[in-house]
Amino acid sequence: MKSEPTRRKPRARDLGISFEGHPGRNNAITDVAGVAVGHVTIVRGHGKLVVGRGPVRTGVTAILPRGSRDSSPLFAGYFSLNGNGEMTGTAWIEESGLLSSPIMITNTHSVGVVRDAVIQWQIEGKRRLQPWSLPVVAETWDGYLNDTDGFHVKPHHTWQALKSARGGAVGEGNVGGGTGMIGYGWKGGIGTASRKLARNEGGYTLGVLVQLNCGRAPELMVAGVAVGKHLRPALDARDRELGSIIIVAATDAPLLPHQLKRVARRLSMGLARTGSVSGNGSGDLFLAFSTANLARSRGSGAVTRAAMLDNWRMDPLFAAAVHATEEAIVNALVAGETMVGIDGHRIPGIDHDDLREVMRQHQRLGRPRLTAAAGSAAEPGR
Amino acid sequence: MKSEPTRRKPRARDLGISFEGHPGRNNAITDVAGVAVGHVTIVRGHGKLVVGRGPVRTGVTAILPRGSRDSSPLFAGYFSLNGNGEMTGTAWIEESGLLSSPIMITNTHSVGVVRDAVIQWQIEGKRRLQPWSLPVVAETWDGYLNDTDGFHVKPHHTWQALKSARGGAVGEGNVGGGTGMIGYGWKGGIGTASRKLARNEGGYTLGVLVQLNCGRAPELMVAGVAVGKHLRPALDARDRELGSIIIVAATDAPLLPHQLKRVARRLSMGLARTGSVSGNGSGDLFLAFSTANLARSRGSGAVTRAAMLDNWRMDPLFAAAVHATEEAIVNALVAGETMVGIDGHRIPGIDHDDLREVMRQHQRLGRPRLTAAAGSAAEPGR
Amino acid sequence: MKSEPTRRKPRARDLGISFEGHPGRNNAITDVAGVAVGHVTIVRGHGKLVVGRGPVRTGVTAILPRGSRDSSPLFAGYFSLNGNGEMTGTAWIEESGLLSSPIMITNTHSVGVVRDAVIQWQIEGKRRLQPWSLPVVAETWDGYLNDTDGFHVKPHHTWQALKSARGGAVGEGNVGGGTGMIGYGWKGGIGTASRKLARNEGGYTLGVLVQLNCGRAPELMVAGVAVGKHLRPALDARDRELGSIIIVAATDAPLLPHQLKRVARRLSMGLARTGSVSGNGSGDLFLAFSTANLARSRGSGAVTRAAMLDNWRMDPLFAAAVHATEEAIVNALVAGETMVGIDGHRIPGIDHDDLREVMRQHQRLGRPRLTAAAGSAAEPGR
Amino acid sequence: MKSEPTRRKPRARDLGISFEGHPGRNNAITDVAGVAVGHVTIVRGHGKLVVGRGPVRTGVTAILPRGSRDSSPLFAGYFSLNGNGEMTGTAWIEESGLLSSPIMITNTHSVGVVRDAVIQWQIEGKRRLQPWSLPVVAETWDGYLNDTDGFHVKPHHTWQALKSARGGAVGEGNVGGGTGMIGYGWKGGIGTASRKLARNEGGYTLGVLVQLNCGRAPELMVAGVAVGKHLRPALDARDRELGSIIIVAATDAPLLPHQLKRVARRLSMGLARTGSVSGNGSGDLFLAFSTANLARSRGSGAVTRAAMLDNWRMDPLFAAAVHATEEAIVNALVAGETMVGIDGHRIPGIDHDDLREVMRQHQRLGRPRLTAAAGSAAEPGR
Repeated sequence: MKSEPTRRKPRARDLGISFEGHPGRNNAITDVAGVAVGHVTIVRGHGKLVVGRGPVRTGVTAILPRGSRDSSPLFAGYFSLNGNGEMTGTAWIEESGLLSSPIMITNTHSVGVVRDAVIQWQIEGKRRLQPWSLPVVAETWDGYLNDTDGFHVKPHHTWQALKSARGGAVGEGNVGGGTGMIGYGWKGGIGTASRKLARNEGGYTLGVLVQLNCGRAPELMVAGVAVGKHLRPALDARDRELGSIIIVAATDAPLLPHQLKRVARRLSMGLARTGSVSGNGSGDLFLAFSTANLARSRGSGAVTRAAMLDNWRMDPLFAAAVHATEEAIVNALVAGETMVGIDGHRIPGIDHDDLREVMRQHQRLGRPRLTAAAGSAAEPGR
Repeated sequence: MKSEPTRRKPRARDLGISFEGHPGRNNAITDVAGVAVGHVTIVRGHGKLVVGRGPVRTGVTAILPRGSRDSSPLFAGYFSLNGNGEMTGTAWIEESGLLSSPIMITNTHSVGVVRDAVIQWQIEGKRRLQPWSLPVVAETWDGYLNDTDGFHVKPHHTWQALKSARGGAVGEGNVGGGTGMIGYGWKGGIGTASRKLARNEGGYTLGVLVQLNCGRAPELMVAGVAVGKHLRPALDARDRELGSIIIVAATDAPLLPHQLKRVARRLSMGLARTGSVSGNGSGDLFLAFSTANLARSRGSGAVTRAAMLDNWRMDPLFAAAVHATEEAIVNALVAGETMVGIDGHRIPGIDHDDLREVMRQHQRLGRPRLTAAAGSAAEPGR
Repeated sequence: MKSEPTRRKPRARDLGISFEGHPGRNNAITDVAGVAVGHVTIVRGHGKLVVGRGPVRTGVTAILPRGSRDSSPLFAGYFSLNGNGEMTGTAWIEESGLLSSPIMITNTHSVGVVRDAVIQWQIEGKRRLQPWSLPVVAETWDGYLNDTDGFHVKPHHTWQALKSARGGAVGEGNVGGGTGMIGYGWKGGIGTASRKLARNEGGYTLGVLVQLNCGRAPELMVAGVAVGKHLRPALDARDRELGSIIIVAATDAPLLPHQLKRVARRLSMGLARTGSVSGNGSGDLFLAFSTANLARSRGSGAVTRAAMLDNWRMDPLFAAAVHATEEAIVNALVAGETMVGIDGHRIPGIDHDDLREVMRQHQRLGRPRLTAAAGSAAEPGR
Repeated sequence: MKSEPTRRKPRARDLGISFEGHPGRNNAITDVAGVAVGHVTIVRGHGKLVVGRGPVRTGVTAILPRGSRDSSPLFAGYFSLNGNGEMTGTAWIEESGLLSSPIMITNTHSVGVVRDAVIQWQIEGKRRLQPWSLPVVAETWDGYLNDTDGFHVKPHHTWQALKSARGGAVGEGNVGGGTGMIGYGWKGGIGTASRKLARNEGGYTLGVLVQLNCGRAPELMVAGVAVGKHLRPALDARDRELGSIIIVAATDAPLLPHQLKRVARRLSMGLARTGSVSGNGSGDLFLAFSTANLARSRGSGAVTRAAMLDNWRMDPLFAAAVHATEEAIVNALVAGETMVGIDGHRIPGIDHDDLREVMRQHQRLGRPRLTAAAGSAAEPGR
């Protein structure tokens, strides 16, 4: 793995596609103060699949809700739209309302190794809050491009992802856990977006990060336009849903656990706006957390004061969650670059010009805008 | 109440708006064989609100899953997207997987009277399966147009709705429980749609009925077009979400209770496609049932054989649920007619020509198509 | 209905039966400051059942979480152990974490009338927090003794129960909603108990009220002794479970909604200690609320401060919830008095001397202790 | 690891303790035809804890619902009583109603390695039903006796546990995942029991297996007797709940997924009968599955016929689930043998004579009965 120089890649808004609401500074989950993201990308080998040897197209993404130095728990809420997937640690989130670990995303068959590696990281960094640990690790399946059955993710990849996590611009597309993922028949992967509420709505920030691996091409909608019907991918890899999407939402709004569950449920509606119907094969698992409460609560007394936003003030956050999810998904598609994986399987990145043309035909194209997205740590030797 | 002659009103497809998938014969929940729908519409008085006297703009809608003669239970599944509402009887549906009563929809403050009236109807008709009864009654709030606090729904309205239920075309708009409802700032109410799957997808039918009372005008999307941004209602009645939506899905596909819960969860995604973010004030409660199993199971032995569709065959049903919900909501708007209620409150029906024009501008208007929708029983003296 | 003079009746501890933990002053749900309870008991007629005429053996119980003058919402959590029952208003409790109405308990077929009557009471008393109301009304079925299908509960009974609610000792047995109920084959009904935690455990109070109508005689366990095996009821009315139990827990511990859900789930474990296996016919629905937060929050700003007890401090509350539930159930049995209802159906109260003898044989009888339990408002003419 | 000769150890009934209901042939989960259980026990080293070196007191238990040759899915249902624990694979069980993997139980920090090792076992044995795998692995925490942070469980332990699984008598106590576990302050671990229903109740078998690691000594109840109050452990290791319990129920009754969820919920009530209040620190996660449906359904058509037991016939199964859980927990305690682990920590096995004496004093001791329990594969070098 090496740290690449930051590449500037266009994002959905850069192409002139418009979405509801006002994004934060980086239009990323890291716009919520303290949230850090790290990717490790593992790309190695070409040609025919030899299980255990490759080719490898996978990785690990780490979200540290309060950066690398603060392991105090946060309020969180979980929702499963379609449970054909895994997110460890959710029983305790449901029970306690607390998130006490980083959130890791990888491929389906590497959830175990990443989970135990997070525990080791917590032990070594003295980051545990109780004698045992129940880390959050989620996944989507990259077996069309990656030698998933070869178990190429190792503990050191996990630690590297954790170590490389930082705020600011977030790498999108073929990076981290999203490396070998497919979205609506095009190259998918990591995408992110954020919303900053107006001052009279509380001024809160809500950010979303997705690992996009779901959807079939004919379903795809971008900003209301049935793009998937006009713009067929070079290869429609799938006649049925074999994907998944993990969606993580962060906010600095002071929400209690049951309110964060409400936010998590809304993430479904952002997904819906991009056309998915959450197929049987899809593991659509969502998590929302708030950075507003409980910081440095370790060792505090028996009773804590928690700030709670009035339920009637939540609508702008609901809208932010829906709209940022929609945009993060499109960002993942726009960032996804053509990839050739096992057995020569090829998944094209969506063509930006074609996409713009379809949007234009439907009066949905605005002026391109230029923003930046960082690249990510990548393993050498590919 | 009298039975009006059937009026022909245009529906969304008649205006040239197109949706995904192929509707059934009536494009209505009643396309699922056996499902019957009855409305009682109560419209009385004008002018200033005098609680208990009116004006009255409300009603009751009854869905009989197997018509009026068969009270055997069906498999059903329930989902709450946002629980600011009431649907009685759901604890037992969750527990047993069984729906054993008609589904009634009315205004918020009349749930009780309708519930007890259904029990009386069951007692008198010997329609009970256990010595007690836990009927399903849902609601949305019509207090902007109706004297909701006046408790104008009476037991006889319930019985009349049940008695008038039949198959075929279903009245939409200002009828039954939907009489005084508002959708996205325009006149809402009852809407319905259906999908008929291709033979190689099982050939199943799935129908949806909504009582639409949610959404704010700027949110409204019709077939991907942000109509609510172009087409402001004469009066935007609400600066925050005060509505709700009840969605009921019926299918003849052989689904088990946990599979119907999966379908119920997808109804959220149909709602999302029309722009709602399910605001805090919205009671968005969904029910899905299947007519495929358990008919005439009363008195059967200890073990029943239930047909179960393979999970991997469910995707077309998920799509049908999402798309029929989207269309049913738009149908409710298209059918809604301008209404003046308490204190002269006026909610306009959406203007069909304006709507068509906005769709045309976005290359989303097809050729108008003519279909029919039945009217409904309505109370005289309005 | 008339107000009877307070009768002193022995409770379980008075008979020398011991339970875990230390009860509060009245060993009742009202030990939680502010909680008020009111009963209306309707007993009328004898002999053969004529539906609509009687005999009548039913009633209504009202729990006002903050007494009659304070309608501000409280945090609450809900759990369904076995959903063959009804508790209205729970969708909103699940969603918002808030309880915004009194908790009413009555018979199964009177849930509707009581619900709408609570709304009317809220409207007239200006006790609503949003323009619509979603009251909590629960039930168990009294059709073995009562003319349940005769719908004898009227709105005025609801209002009377609400009006008569007060703190202090709580009537038990054949009172209020519990009037015609059966517990483990003996006369059941209302029971209550409380626990006061030690100062080093926070000093909190947790109280429980049950409407006991579940269980079969051979299952009954009292303080670990299989009483039901030794002490057969004069008449075992049921060969299968036809009952239900509603359990309400109140506490002044500062718990958030998701923590109250945890408490609600523990109520199952108190029920289990009395021998029930929560049969299919049983509607076992539980609610827990806390008086510690949100008082007078009406009109407050966008962000509230909520006190939250550390999760690690909850164990004493869990124990209190389990033990108080166990005792409240036994209290309901001890208070239940022999009743003859429709068609001469007779359900005996458990014989106190026989019960003591069985306990004594198992080394489980302590010294009798004398406490008091108040009677309740009862309808005349029985 | 070596295979020990089968040791005969007394079980709870052998000591004269009686429970409700009639056990199956082995009074074990394996009484449900096809269910196989394998244990790998890892015991190594003595003295002071050196993380990564030991001492080691842990293991892995495998439950194969249909033995080692049949990987077809089964209906299953899940319930979390207190989610301070991990059970992977439950999102898919909740969604699909299907269990498609063995059920593994180990220590908290080895869930990951076991999970990925199961996937490898499935890949190599061609036991997968979809291209990805979401195995079920559960845990409790053995850090008082075991070097849990040393990650001593390896993939080969998992494979060995799977390979050694068989029907018949099941090893109890300090074996498999239960090796280092503590129950109510005494040595806990694996326990099992079963119930065989009468022919007129359907003749079904229901078996339970627990990995007991929860409870505090003063709470312990055995067959209704507050044993924990009379019989203090030599060392009360804990002043607060640090344990957990995993409970797995198997049955051949034809139950649908939602019905199995009902069974899973009842397992709480069996736990409650042994005195636990499910403390905050406890991961109390329960799974129930049925062997009655779907066997050999791989490659079957789109619609399957599933047998469903009438809800009204479920009460005997509910009772069986509660009673077998109670007995399995006591069996785990009776089988637990004194163990010395890290840093000389010593947890005594409950003294059989003392236990019998307390039971005798409470008139709860019957005649001892002799049955057998098999030992288990154990790692050498302890």
